[in-house]
Amino acid sequence: MGTSIKNQANILLSPEALLEHWQGHRRVTRRMIEVFPEDKLFSYSIGGMRPFSELVMEFLGMGAPGMRGVATGKWDIPEHLAHHKPERPSSKKELLRLWDDSTDEINRLWRQTPSERFSETDRAFGQWEGPVYGFIFYWIDNEIHHRGQAYVYLRSLGIEPPAFYDRS
Amino acid sequence: MGTSIKNQANILLSPEALLEHWQGHRRVTRRMIEVFPEDKLFSYSIGGMRPFSELVMEFLGMGAPGMRGVATGKWDIPEHLAHHKPERPSSKKELLRLWDDSTDEINRLWRQTPSERFSETDRAFGQWEGPVYGFIFYWIDNEIHHRGQAYVYLRSLGIEPPAFYDRS
Repeated sequence: MGTSIKNQANILLSPEALLEHWQGHRRVTRRMIEVFPEDKLFSYSIGGMRPFSELVMEFLGMGAPGMRGVATGKWDIPEHLAHHKPERPSSKKELLRLWDDSTDEINRLWRQTPSERFSETDRAFGQWEGPVYGFIFYWIDNEIHHRGQAYVYLRSLGIEPPAFYDRS
Repeated sequence: MGTSIKNQANILLSPEALLEHWQGHRRVTRRMIEVFPEDKLFSYSIGGMRPFSELVMEFLGMGAPGMRGVATGKWDIPEHLAHHKPERPSSKKELLRLWDDSTDEINRLWRQTPSERFSETDRAFGQWEGPVYGFIFYWIDNEIHHRGQAYVYLRSLGIEPPAFYDRS
């Protein structure tokens, strides 16, 4: 079936390139936190949706905890995470500190992860089965999705958000 | 430098898996179009941002036109695209028809693309240099980003959006 020019070569995606892709998106999110007015960061909502700080806490609950599962094969289960929520930060400075700690931890755990691990099948947080790289795609996609929501919050406040395409 | 357990194995990401990832996201976007009230689809805005129909037209201008560049190595330049904009649809039915045509064309062009092509370096639309798979990541990410914006539009209209995690 199908054409004969197709073969089964995989895409040459290195773990390093995937990490850079993720951290590039995380840099955009960090700039969103920086530009968000501090008095709105923890409270501003449209349509009953969560404030941006809560979305950021969700990203933080997936990123480094997820990478611990990737690196070690041992996953915190979501229920466990829910019962041991980290301290809720109450300032932008504190939220940025948590963000930067998470950045460092993701990088550290990534360096500990053998390249082959990203292609293994596992069950993220004990629940979602698939290839490990697919979990990372999901965490990135989820961050883009909710960050897009925060772009509307900012625009509705009359504030220019950082450029989506700039991952520097 | 670094640990010795790290090696250079690439991630086992097949072209088929990347296409499925993209089309899964495109199915979510299609459900967003379906659930969006027709009278708001072409006009509703928050913070001066574009109506959802305009965002969808942007996705359509990247998806199949981008895949033509991927499949053939020949790119329409964005200026050219801007001067030859497709007819602006004025109904949800028409927008969904354009969406479905694009879905078919992406699948058709993907089948014509040799697997190795996704790992080549090229210049998307004559402008942005990088690996071909990176262009596809960008088109997916851009769709997630702006679709996240439309989730806020829907919520502010009191409408429950389709689940982000359901890619069926």
